[in-house]
Amino acid sequence: MKKFVNDPKQFVPEMLEGIALANPDTLTYVPEYNLIMRSDAPRDGKVSIVQGSGSGHEPAHVMIVGKGMLDAACPGDVFAAPPMDYVYETTKRLASPAGVLLLVNNYTGDRMAFDMGREMAEADGIRVEILTVDDDVAVKDSLYTIGRRGVAGNFFVIKAVGAASERGADLDELVRIGKKVNDVTRTMGVALTACTPPAKGSPLFELGADEMEFGVGIHGEPGRERRPMTNADAIVDELLEAVASDLPYASGDRVALMINGLGGTPISELYLLYRRAHQQLAARGITVGRSYVNEYCTSLDMAGASLTLVRLDDELDGLLAEPAEVAIRVF
Amino acid sequence: MKKFVNDPKQFVPEMLEGIALANPDTLTYVPEYNLIMRSDAPRDGKVSIVQGSGSGHEPAHVMIVGKGMLDAACPGDVFAAPPMDYVYETTKRLASPAGVLLLVNNYTGDRMAFDMGREMAEADGIRVEILTVDDDVAVKDSLYTIGRRGVAGNFFVIKAVGAASERGADLDELVRIGKKVNDVTRTMGVALTACTPPAKGSPLFELGADEMEFGVGIHGEPGRERRPMTNADAIVDELLEAVASDLPYASGDRVALMINGLGGTPISELYLLYRRAHQQLAARGITVGRSYVNEYCTSLDMAGASLTLVRLDDELDGLLAEPAEVAIRVF
Repeated sequence: MKKFVNDPKQFVPEMLEGIALANPDTLTYVPEYNLIMRSDAPRDGKVSIVQGSGSGHEPAHVMIVGKGMLDAACPGDVFAAPPMDYVYETTKRLASPAGVLLLVNNYTGDRMAFDMGREMAEADGIRVEILTVDDDVAVKDSLYTIGRRGVAGNFFVIKAVGAASERGADLDELVRIGKKVNDVTRTMGVALTACTPPAKGSPLFELGADEMEFGVGIHGEPGRERRPMTNADAIVDELLEAVASDLPYASGDRVALMINGLGGTPISELYLLYRRAHQQLAARGITVGRSYVNEYCTSLDMAGASLTLVRLDDELDGLLAEPAEVAIRVF
Repeated sequence: MKKFVNDPKQFVPEMLEGIALANPDTLTYVPEYNLIMRSDAPRDGKVSIVQGSGSGHEPAHVMIVGKGMLDAACPGDVFAAPPMDYVYETTKRLASPAGVLLLVNNYTGDRMAFDMGREMAEADGIRVEILTVDDDVAVKDSLYTIGRRGVAGNFFVIKAVGAASERGADLDELVRIGKKVNDVTRTMGVALTACTPPAKGSPLFELGADEMEFGVGIHGEPGRERRPMTNADAIVDELLEAVASDLPYASGDRVALMINGLGGTPISELYLLYRRAHQQLAARGITVGRSYVNEYCTSLDMAGASLTLVRLDDELDGLLAEPAEVAIRVF
């Protein structure tokens, strides 16, 4: 296994400890519950926003805790939902009189953990809402999901509700905004290689030297089709057609365009994909108002990428433009 | 070849076009010379700062052009120095009465191109200085270098002179600051896998399933030793010893600590490396004042990482803390 790892069982705790050590002034780490939280949370007048899921999707979600984004992240082990008591303890510690908003990608295991954690917290008198993200157009129902999966588009939900929360929005308003973003966000991805979970030590699935998995999930689960590799432009054209025709996005729309790397693909290639997507959107009469080219939601070391569109209006554009401060930084 | 690529000959131009399309308000792209420049450069009172090198090290340097960083980047093809006339044309277009500062990583091919480009520009009456970065402690003299190589530590030179330039520093002052940063910066890296240049279509070198290249260069060139894989902590301890003992960094020092991914290693693993480095520095009585965990200077899709230390004083700390605006963004 060609990875930087010590004991695979300590992979997640050691990563979380690193995040905390690099951000001593702003983040607090609670090892018993894999909890990374803002040191200044909870605050009386502010809804606390929490996202949890399996680990292995970094920077989501443990590296985007901070002002204007998440108040806390509650990760499980690699590709495993957090236990319900982690969700419960996290919700208790983040409990503010304004309430707690739990963001969940639509995977069945995550939904179960968060539904149960929510029940436990509500029994303590904490006001909790859950918002489910399901932006992946690749498949309806899949190995680990009923309905559509939640993937890289969750970044936009987090950014929008994080910004609105800093402005003082209450829990109902955050649920409205989060649903609105999810409703106008669509994603599809493609894998060129499998990923290797530290505990397994070998690739999670087999993919031939000239094959790609079209519509892959963020745990490497199957998508629409396994097919021969094509060139970058042809891949973008197919991803874009699948995504754009789903909402659909139409001439005259203004969108945010995200090219998200899945972990093992260098950013040079992501900009090459961005170029084609931008050009093809222009050809469809769709204007790119905001651009996102980086890693946002990965699948460990998988080579691959996903394409996300968000239909913008003035409200969403304003929320996405707000500043934020998180662990992951360019300088 | 499992890469997002069309015609390998168009890999660099298509990437540059993507960068320009994603930043229409701030960047200008001049295809004839692979030139990415700030749209508001040159400015009369400001020294223009330019870095060039082969491509394949992204985000260095084409994605860090912007306010507070580079005024322009002048890249060659993948792992190839830019032709001298690219350097000359770039310098002419960036010529300001305050002069032009060319930053060059110490690789012989790059130095030749920039020395020649500088001569051509000086013949036109343009004031030019060259600052060479050579932070890699792994080897003295190597396949493509006389002296030490310039690697990820160049980020700190760029950030410091970029910030000083925004404050109005003149060319002599920028050369002083850049040399000062280079003098207190040391780096060493390790490769777990080889990288695949698009034009070659296969790995650049062979590395066994249980081997790593210790002290690797950013083009995959040999370092100190090829040896069996060990765990993450043992790798960090050896990198840190090599780097810290070189300047040396001593008890009582305050440093910036960078864990730089080489392109194919996910950020989860980088934070795991960061954790150990931070702990071992503390054990040596060295305080981490600033933390950098991300990709800064890559080698295409190579799995691996490098560790950089910069000894801080108030002047450098202040310059590194200044804001900047570049193509690559977290949100």
